[in-house]
Amino acid sequence: MIDFTTSVPVIIDLKKILDVRGNLSIIEGEKDIPFIIQRTYWIYDVPGGEIRGGHAYKTLREFVVALSGSFDVVLNNGEKEMRYHLNRSYYGLYVPNMYWRHMENFSTNSVSLILADQDYDESDYIRDFDKFKAALNG
Amino acid sequence: MIDFTTSVPVIIDLKKILDVRGNLSIIEGEKDIPFIIQRTYWIYDVPGGEIRGGHAYKTLREFVVALSGSFDVVLNNGEKEMRYHLNRSYYGLYVPNMYWRHMENFSTNSVSLILADQDYDESDYIRDFDKFKAALNG
Repeated sequence: MIDFTTSVPVIIDLKKILDVRGNLSIIEGEKDIPFIIQRTYWIYDVPGGEIRGGHAYKTLREFVVALSGSFDVVLNNGEKEMRYHLNRSYYGLYVPNMYWRHMENFSTNSVSLILADQDYDESDYIRDFDKFKAALNG
Repeated sequence: MIDFTTSVPVIIDLKKILDVRGNLSIIEGEKDIPFIIQRTYWIYDVPGGEIRGGHAYKTLREFVVALSGSFDVVLNNGEKEMRYHLNRSYYGLYVPNMYWRHMENFSTNSVSLILADQDYDESDYIRDFDKFKAALNG
């Protein structure tokens, strides 16, 4: 069972329905992940080995799934770095707010699906690592 | 602009952010599609050429995107059949309630993403085409 009060990153196994006609994984908001899905986006056509990201969110929380291929999500809580290699579509990484993150080591033809608890809001981004550290200590 | 009062299927072009480091497509609930995203699921590892589905929903509405590969969504409103070939991750098909549907002609390694406005509820399914036709005719 998921700890919905978690404020640390956690890998969440998803419900899956296996079938010879193809497999299915499901997320219901606030049941399988700790929030209602307000926005979803996906990243594709990433050249193999590229790096994306390098920011934190003040309040936004996300859930990241490798729908195709694989990539690494690298998180930093201001004290240490954590690396998660995602390569299956039946689990994902819950990323709380106030974690610096980037994605790297994309396989060719990878597709990353991200579910977020908020609409896009530029004022929620922290794009400077020193400012992120200052905000943590503030 | 999307007609949010539509009760017929429609292809919706999505916002996309093109970047040499990879491309990104975005859906915000009730902005880019006609509903809040309550549930999301994806279908993968479908053997090429397989057929999935064959049901209608009394009230549930969905949005279907080909995140990888391609497939056909075949809809039936009780009078005629409509076929949509989905093969790009920057547009999708809005499927209102009370449309009989199945998916077929999956390419190998295709991934279909489906966003739904409700949690799973078996009582919302109509799994018999004759009952579907009867329900349409009131």
